[in-house]
Amino acid sequence: MKPEQESVVPFRWYRGRLLLLDQTLLPREERWLELIDHRQVAEAIRSMRVRGAPAIGVAAGYGLALAAMSSQAGDRAGLLADLESAAAHLIATRPTAVNLSWAIRRALDAARDASDVREAVISEAELIDRDDVEANRRLGAHGAEMVADGATVLTHCNAGALATAGYGTALGVIRAAVDQSKRVRVVATETRPALQGARLTAWELARDGIDCTLIVDSAAGSLMRQGEIDLVVVGADRIAANGDTANKIGTYAFAVLARAHSIPFYVAAPTSTIDLACATGDAIPIEGRSPDEVLSQPIDGVTVTNPAFDVTPAELIDAIISERGVLRAPYSVSLARLFEPAEVPA
Amino acid sequence: MKPEQESVVPFRWYRGRLLLLDQTLLPREERWLELIDHRQVAEAIRSMRVRGAPAIGVAAGYGLALAAMSSQAGDRAGLLADLESAAAHLIATRPTAVNLSWAIRRALDAARDASDVREAVISEAELIDRDDVEANRRLGAHGAEMVADGATVLTHCNAGALATAGYGTALGVIRAAVDQSKRVRVVATETRPALQGARLTAWELARDGIDCTLIVDSAAGSLMRQGEIDLVVVGADRIAANGDTANKIGTYAFAVLARAHSIPFYVAAPTSTIDLACATGDAIPIEGRSPDEVLSQPIDGVTVTNPAFDVTPAELIDAIISERGVLRAPYSVSLARLFEPAEVPA
Repeated sequence: MKPEQESVVPFRWYRGRLLLLDQTLLPREERWLELIDHRQVAEAIRSMRVRGAPAIGVAAGYGLALAAMSSQAGDRAGLLADLESAAAHLIATRPTAVNLSWAIRRALDAARDASDVREAVISEAELIDRDDVEANRRLGAHGAEMVADGATVLTHCNAGALATAGYGTALGVIRAAVDQSKRVRVVATETRPALQGARLTAWELARDGIDCTLIVDSAAGSLMRQGEIDLVVVGADRIAANGDTANKIGTYAFAVLARAHSIPFYVAAPTSTIDLACATGDAIPIEGRSPDEVLSQPIDGVTVTNPAFDVTPAELIDAIISERGVLRAPYSVSLARLFEPAEVPA
Repeated sequence: MKPEQESVVPFRWYRGRLLLLDQTLLPREERWLELIDHRQVAEAIRSMRVRGAPAIGVAAGYGLALAAMSSQAGDRAGLLADLESAAAHLIATRPTAVNLSWAIRRALDAARDASDVREAVISEAELIDRDDVEANRRLGAHGAEMVADGATVLTHCNAGALATAGYGTALGVIRAAVDQSKRVRVVATETRPALQGARLTAWELARDGIDCTLIVDSAAGSLMRQGEIDLVVVGADRIAANGDTANKIGTYAFAVLARAHSIPFYVAAPTSTIDLACATGDAIPIEGRSPDEVLSQPIDGVTVTNPAFDVTPAELIDAIISERGVLRAPYSVSLARLFEPAEVPA
């Protein structure tokens, strides 16, 4: 562990350009792309050069900032129309993570309320970025309470610094526990088909000097049976009002297995991932991705089903770790409370 | 479905040579190797050019036949010593599948009892081969009773024609159901790290015109939750006296998930896979394979754990389908009964 080292970030806003680390090339190559157009940001999200619910939200915010900067509109109405059009283009890239539309709406709202639309969109995008890092650090501190000294934590996919504006959600919890001088061992699933665990989580943890063991996804159950896993922490792409949680395909299976072995199962996510408009997980759209991700060469007569996410029902989730504290069931109550206006002292 | 077509076989004994289909190259290429030495057979087993518990048993029998043919020993004692040495070499290749030592012992016993050692080993190897195909056909017919018309069957890894001397165990059950004109749909897990599901099961089923949908391993739980799976049928590498079953890593997780969704979970295996010398699954040696299978390029500071198998406890197995019928719990009784001497009519 090198506490002086900042964890990696998936992008940097620099002089009106979005520098973006192409995650499809990691860990083989660290290539930074320089994006100057919101369509480039949309392409980067669709092709998973940037991925992870909070990260694609923040990136989309910067996409809108790029749209504001490049708009040729001569008046405020024209500029807002250009922003609406860019927003629709960005939102259409991926359907499951709610952070995408959340960030876009937040930046658009700031634009509509401001006298200087361009400046407002850029400032709001930068604020969404800073807020996400701050939320992850607070979330991590809350979650670290659940991680005992010497614990082995199973995590799935990459809910790390690379999946957020920095520090990470599930990996933020682990980083915070390590920062508290706890000895923590991570078991990372490789996460087929796109291998975010093998390519991103393992790389990110190794970079920070955190003990990481990689397994194939299907080995998690067997490790649980052998008593090798103390807790499971995963990220989230969208949390419904009742606590049902969409996350990377496989999460549901790990939640069932954790319950069968009496292992606590935690979801770590900022409040930007919560969607009270979805009553339950059934209302969350699940993205199906290309068969090519599973089978590089098609086999005649063989169908491939490639859902990118699944839904874990609230009853399998022992706690949702947010930047505003650790939420417990019934989630319909604890989640709704987060969105109530602050109480005014009498 | 083309009922006139025989299912593929993983090898053919032809004029004193073992022609072996290199399964590491499938489905990209169908390359047949010509093996003339037991050391080549051992290499093919170790590197998974031939794999699947029954198939490596039969291949090892032919390995011993090759050793008998190439032995330079001048007398019976010398020839038997050469066979013992070849047997030890073949058995050392992979530890989990008991069929390997079972077939070797059977061929060695035949050699010791015979006047013509060479001829006895070759005949016994051919008999083990024919017996396995016959066992799979009978096993399939018993198992087909569990498959309703219109059923969707989840299977893991490849327990097909390629994993046996022909026809298959889990896929033998499916073939037999299809032969009975039942409409059967197979959901095959890709089976990381070696992708036997994506490369072998999908190819083998497509070749026979059986409906096959491929998924990543971690998607199985989600499909079960959606009611898409009616039953699970898998093969086995070793079945302990109490019914605990070692099979491809991930099998245990699928058994837990099947139970959580009230989906029947069946193991299909010939009696050559049963090892009464192992009281429980704890006594079954589990092979750990190379990290390279999981991570093609090592990442500094990242450990890889790559167990090739796991153990599913008997209580999660609804039935064991063997060539001698469908066995039910308590397996300590039903398995032991298979090995009792036939009753003599009074």
